Amino acid sequence: MPRVVVDVMPKPEILDPQGKAVLGALPRLGFGGVTDVRQGKRFELEVEGEVTEAVLAQVREMAETLLSNPVIENFDVRVEETA
Amino acid sequence: MPRVVVDVMPKPEILDPQGKAVLGALPRLGFGGVTDVRQGKRFELEVEGEVTEAVLAQVREMAETLLSNPVIENFDVRVEETA
Repeated sequence: MPRVVVDVMPKPEILDPQGKAVLGALPRLGFGGVTDVRQGKRFELEVEGEVTEAVLAQVREMAETLLSNPVIENFDVRVEETA
Repeated sequence: MPRVVVDVMPKPEILDPQGKAVLGALPRLGFGGVTDVRQGKRFELEVEGEVTEAVLAQVREMAETLLSNPVIENFDVRVEETA
C-alpha cells in the first residue's frame, strides 16, 4: 500500500534549539564525529485509493497550511511503498 | 555530502495524539481522503568524513539511546545524498 510522507524541517537559516540540544548531548554520551544535527517532523499519511498527482497536490496544500509553518520551515512530500 | 537521517515514529500499537489531532483537523480544513496520520520526528545528522558501516552502527546506538524511546517508538537509519 502506498503511503505519503511529509518531512518538515526548520529552514537552514533558522535556529534549531532541539537539534542543538541533541548535538550538545552526543559528546557527553561518548559519541563523536557528528558536526551538526537538525530536528524536524515526519508525517505518514494513509490515503484512500491510488496516489495520483491530484492527491499529491492536495497533500502539498495540507503541508503548507497545517503541517508546516512556511515562514520558518521547509517541507518535502513523497510517496513511500509499505510492506 | 552524505547525511545520515534518523526517522523516529510511534509504534503502530501506541496511541499517537498528535497524529490524531492532524487527522481530525483535515476535514475541517476541507481535505478529504486521508484515513490515518502518524506524526514522528526526523533527525538530520552531518558526520565528519565518510559514512562507513561503523559510523552507521554508532548512529543506530545514538538513535536507540538518545533520539528515540525504544519502548514506544521505532526508528530507521539511512544515508541520504545532499545536493
